[in-house]
Amino acid sequence: MSSMIGNTVRASIFGGSHTEAIGVVLDGLPHGEEIDLTALEQQMARRAPGRDISSTPRKESDTPRILCGLLDGVTTGAPLCLLIENTNTRSKDYSDLKIHPRPGHADYTAYVRYGGHNDIRGGGHFSGRLTACLTAAGAIARQILEKRGIHIGAHALQIGPVQDRRFDPVHVQDEDLMRLSTGYFSLLDPEKEAPMRAVIEEARQALDSVGGVVECAVTGLPAGLGSPMFGGVENELGRALFGIPAVKGVEFGDGFGVAALHGSENNDAFCYDEDGKVKTLTNHAGGILGGITTGMPVVFRCAFKPTPSIAREQQTVDLCKKTDAPLSIHGRHDPCIVPRAIPVVENTAALVLLDMMAGQSML
Amino acid sequence: MSSMIGNTVRASIFGGSHTEAIGVVLDGLPHGEEIDLTALEQQMARRAPGRDISSTPRKESDTPRILCGLLDGVTTGAPLCLLIENTNTRSKDYSDLKIHPRPGHADYTAYVRYGGHNDIRGGGHFSGRLTACLTAAGAIARQILEKRGIHIGAHALQIGPVQDRRFDPVHVQDEDLMRLSTGYFSLLDPEKEAPMRAVIEEARQALDSVGGVVECAVTGLPAGLGSPMFGGVENELGRALFGIPAVKGVEFGDGFGVAALHGSENNDAFCYDEDGKVKTLTNHAGGILGGITTGMPVVFRCAFKPTPSIAREQQTVDLCKKTDAPLSIHGRHDPCIVPRAIPVVENTAALVLLDMMAGQSML
Amino acid sequence: MSSMIGNTVRASIFGGSHTEAIGVVLDGLPHGEEIDLTALEQQMARRAPGRDISSTPRKESDTPRILCGLLDGVTTGAPLCLLIENTNTRSKDYSDLKIHPRPGHADYTAYVRYGGHNDIRGGGHFSGRLTACLTAAGAIARQILEKRGIHIGAHALQIGPVQDRRFDPVHVQDEDLMRLSTGYFSLLDPEKEAPMRAVIEEARQALDSVGGVVECAVTGLPAGLGSPMFGGVENELGRALFGIPAVKGVEFGDGFGVAALHGSENNDAFCYDEDGKVKTLTNHAGGILGGITTGMPVVFRCAFKPTPSIAREQQTVDLCKKTDAPLSIHGRHDPCIVPRAIPVVENTAALVLLDMMAGQSML
Amino acid sequence: MSSMIGNTVRASIFGGSHTEAIGVVLDGLPHGEEIDLTALEQQMARRAPGRDISSTPRKESDTPRILCGLLDGVTTGAPLCLLIENTNTRSKDYSDLKIHPRPGHADYTAYVRYGGHNDIRGGGHFSGRLTACLTAAGAIARQILEKRGIHIGAHALQIGPVQDRRFDPVHVQDEDLMRLSTGYFSLLDPEKEAPMRAVIEEARQALDSVGGVVECAVTGLPAGLGSPMFGGVENELGRALFGIPAVKGVEFGDGFGVAALHGSENNDAFCYDEDGKVKTLTNHAGGILGGITTGMPVVFRCAFKPTPSIAREQQTVDLCKKTDAPLSIHGRHDPCIVPRAIPVVENTAALVLLDMMAGQSML
Repeated sequence: MSSMIGNTVRASIFGGSHTEAIGVVLDGLPHGEEIDLTALEQQMARRAPGRDISSTPRKESDTPRILCGLLDGVTTGAPLCLLIENTNTRSKDYSDLKIHPRPGHADYTAYVRYGGHNDIRGGGHFSGRLTACLTAAGAIARQILEKRGIHIGAHALQIGPVQDRRFDPVHVQDEDLMRLSTGYFSLLDPEKEAPMRAVIEEARQALDSVGGVVECAVTGLPAGLGSPMFGGVENELGRALFGIPAVKGVEFGDGFGVAALHGSENNDAFCYDEDGKVKTLTNHAGGILGGITTGMPVVFRCAFKPTPSIAREQQTVDLCKKTDAPLSIHGRHDPCIVPRAIPVVENTAALVLLDMMAGQSML
Repeated sequence: MSSMIGNTVRASIFGGSHTEAIGVVLDGLPHGEEIDLTALEQQMARRAPGRDISSTPRKESDTPRILCGLLDGVTTGAPLCLLIENTNTRSKDYSDLKIHPRPGHADYTAYVRYGGHNDIRGGGHFSGRLTACLTAAGAIARQILEKRGIHIGAHALQIGPVQDRRFDPVHVQDEDLMRLSTGYFSLLDPEKEAPMRAVIEEARQALDSVGGVVECAVTGLPAGLGSPMFGGVENELGRALFGIPAVKGVEFGDGFGVAALHGSENNDAFCYDEDGKVKTLTNHAGGILGGITTGMPVVFRCAFKPTPSIAREQQTVDLCKKTDAPLSIHGRHDPCIVPRAIPVVENTAALVLLDMMAGQSML
Repeated sequence: MSSMIGNTVRASIFGGSHTEAIGVVLDGLPHGEEIDLTALEQQMARRAPGRDISSTPRKESDTPRILCGLLDGVTTGAPLCLLIENTNTRSKDYSDLKIHPRPGHADYTAYVRYGGHNDIRGGGHFSGRLTACLTAAGAIARQILEKRGIHIGAHALQIGPVQDRRFDPVHVQDEDLMRLSTGYFSLLDPEKEAPMRAVIEEARQALDSVGGVVECAVTGLPAGLGSPMFGGVENELGRALFGIPAVKGVEFGDGFGVAALHGSENNDAFCYDEDGKVKTLTNHAGGILGGITTGMPVVFRCAFKPTPSIAREQQTVDLCKKTDAPLSIHGRHDPCIVPRAIPVVENTAALVLLDMMAGQSML
Repeated sequence: MSSMIGNTVRASIFGGSHTEAIGVVLDGLPHGEEIDLTALEQQMARRAPGRDISSTPRKESDTPRILCGLLDGVTTGAPLCLLIENTNTRSKDYSDLKIHPRPGHADYTAYVRYGGHNDIRGGGHFSGRLTACLTAAGAIARQILEKRGIHIGAHALQIGPVQDRRFDPVHVQDEDLMRLSTGYFSLLDPEKEAPMRAVIEEARQALDSVGGVVECAVTGLPAGLGSPMFGGVENELGRALFGIPAVKGVEFGDGFGVAALHGSENNDAFCYDEDGKVKTLTNHAGGILGGITTGMPVVFRCAFKPTPSIAREQQTVDLCKKTDAPLSIHGRHDPCIVPRAIPVVENTAALVLLDMMAGQSML
């Protein structure tokens, strides 16, 4: 089930960096939902490369074509297939990689996994290009959630050593999420953009790359979403988020920070708010207890490793000659994928949450 | 699919803290595998409570009874059902909790999720008691993996402020894993046990609890295990590990540490070792690239929040009167679950990895 | 996923004819549903052997023990595990079968499938005994459906050459279904019982067995249940019904009879009834079009092969000596399983329909 | 999971009769398999309409375009997406059907299921057009099976009152299957073509349609394929075959004929053949015992109802005015779909069997 996800709303993702097209089939979408293609394309544009010097200068035609599943802009309930043609593929750049797997990439593991039959061009089905499908699928899911008052926004919490401030997990504002989820290089503190760009530019000039952390928040989720053990929000989001290439860690609420806390610090006291709703005074739990939403904002973070494609010479092996060999990667690569990963994280979360809401008859 | 996990080897977990019994059905186990019940009980004993002052003084009869699936100690290929009777349940302790949900527990979210019909006694199906099922299922899986030379061991990397040293991810030793995976309060540096116990004891005396981090390593996995996107080792382990109560973060390799790294630091150079096998010189990736094993040790960490059950008075709500209310939790609770969580993490990983190996015909 | 079924309400069945116990875990049951254990036991009794000369004289203790998932007789929403101890097992009868596979049984195919490690005693996990689990699971599901006005009843349509009359698929009466679904050897025309019993008795005295057909009807299902392609009522029921040992054919509505019909005969004209509801004037479709219920009664039939265990000498092979060999089966066997299969068909259908209703938020 | 099927090799089917395109994603295909596109197109041609007067005069461009998953004609192991553009769609024919649901079609049930948002044009996602996707997916699967010596062929066993002879289930010949699986209007006894065509022509001239039965056989399957209970060959094939529009019954081996048999007649005696392989002297079981293949030919039959689209005036309802209303269907329709259904049945079986073989590591 490698490229399929979801239980009730199921996504099946296909394509590779240099195949004719990439795309996604969404099976089980609720019917009767109006889909705004402009809003969909807006999300695609946030992920698209080539926006500025911080990202790869490749131009990808990311305009999705919806082949079926919509009639007059409204979901029919039948599977929706969304296709993105790959128009700007320069396969020559990649001819050498099957013999010389790139450090930090899936070249070698895919070679072993698929007996050398994998499509190595541009990383094939392992390419970050596939996040366009996740983004598109999630952008559709997001619209359905937004009509139910659920908002999702993320920001670059960290790039190299520079940190944005964290969400205040008790008081996440819908307006902030709306701003974050429509912008590029989204930040809670816009003053961090300059130093973060400086770190990226420094890496770029050093023929290097740099990692980071994306933090995401979701408001408007009703209490009671999720199921115990393996059907919790953390399980489902965790499984999906680790599907975004380069993610090496996922944490919810205080995450790894809980290790140093006492129960008396970490427990979120319950209280009634002025509207007679149960809330928590703090939100160390990130809106999730026992895998199930509390009704407080859901907050989580994903760690992104630095782009493995760097122009510096690196050491690898020659799988033909069975010797060590130097490698210089040419081509067009992001020195930091975090800015473009922000919409990917948001929309992946939307896809997962829509699936969970649908599965619990909560739409 | 909340309490079911796995694609090829599927586990279905049932029971609650105070039900007649808890247990697990394993469907799709490979046939013809000899299961050593003594080794199984050894794993159960590592997780069992009441071993010392650091854990709850409750005594649980954790001896599993295998109802079917084994014949003369060998798996038949039919579903295996393993049952653990709940003999020592004191339901009176919990009578009040449906009205006064415990902060940090699933009481409130389960109440909303199940319309108040959930079994609140001892946390019901959300209880840490259910990790006995995960441990038992994984202990069976582990034996099948060990025959293929795959070893899994974990240790308490952190409890409160005290840290054990990390695995050297390039040179994880099978012997270390064997020692860790048979001991209690496993540590790479045994000298850390005293200060860690001190932190726990301090929390206990303060009617409080404390969190921690478990680090786990797996050796002997062949390169090529896992699939792209959502079928990777990170996705599958991530999904399962977030099913262990109290886990709030999961990371692989350098995990959140990658955010501060450059590509030139984080990329693991490939090389041939003396046996003509492809290795990496470093192992920031934690043995996983593109979701697929590299053949290097797999290393990951889980953050555990402090036990929410603390004896101090806390603030909660009265769901009947719809007012805020104080809460004092009585009963028997672990001031720190990390020591007992170590075997849970290991065995959960075993269950996931066996499922993945079986699914790729790698057994 | 051999012994698991269901998407939203999932059943995991375990055990074998001669294991300590058999049982089923139901994951995803709706919460807050009162379960009447007497009604559950009534269904078990309908399936239990030893009722009269037409069935095996074995006595099985079929009283189920519910280990978890119920609190004060009401579903909690957590997995429900139902256990049936195997008390009356005489393993000696079966010692020879691994070498001499019984014709018509799964002995040989299980031997190949599981490399000889399968539990051959009493047919192991292939035993008709496992239908007790299906019956129990379905008996719980049935109660939830009945509260929504959905009734399920079946009868012996055919045993050997003797036929009961078919359901009138337009006018299936709830009272008939209630009568059928609580009786033993259920028939629409009770006058057929004597000739059917005569056929069975004749077979028994001839050391032989005889096959038959069970016809089942469901009333009260709302229009709109089911999904296109592989998620239709026919797909889901078909998959489950072929899981009842001995079923070799499944048909809906006119079934194989449609082959000889013209469209003008087979099409069911739509009309409004006196209550302003859409109905069909005829019901050749068996209440299902495009996999989705029309709101008319659902009608289907299952063909049961004659019990393969017959006392006559038969020819088989000796898997040790690799020669042909004669075989005489001793022990206690049903000369016709159709009477006991009636409740199995009904309750299996209940399980499937509950799963589908839950998956479409129709409960 | 309505339009997805498979556990290891998973197909996700999308599109409708009048959407831009239809297609299928195959996830989990074995890698390194050469796919012959000419053979694929040959299967598509067998299903394509407009071949002669017995089928609809519509011309559909059924040439599939493979977007990804193949590199130099060899499977890469990544998802394969196959697209078929819908070029010849005349939507005007169908404008009226949402108000006047066609008897025997899914118009009404889809209307209820999807709250009227379903795409009614040409039957939408319920159209027989979707069997092009099944055929294409199965045609790929078939090639992989054929390399392992597995052959699949079907024929029109019955059309109206005319019957072809049945397979001799003990001696199914590979050459027969190869002939059947490459021809059009395949028959075991070619002399039956004329009378069958006469029946179809008679129905056509009477503005009517006629049903039939397709019988299919599979040779070369190893013994041991399938799993007990719900994972058997009968369950998996049954579930998939009921996904072919118009199928109302599925039976294996002697099927419904077993009802009239004694065990002594129905049991297939085991014996060793001259090569020392276990065979059965007869094959009433259709090559399947306990859901698992015996190594004998697998034989099954599907009943197809007469095409519901007939030109005669019929009675239906007006869903707007809520009155009964007459209906005359115009447009182009098959008076009998059985000839075109033959390759659909074969290739659907191929898809299911490949999935099962892959899941048991038998490729």
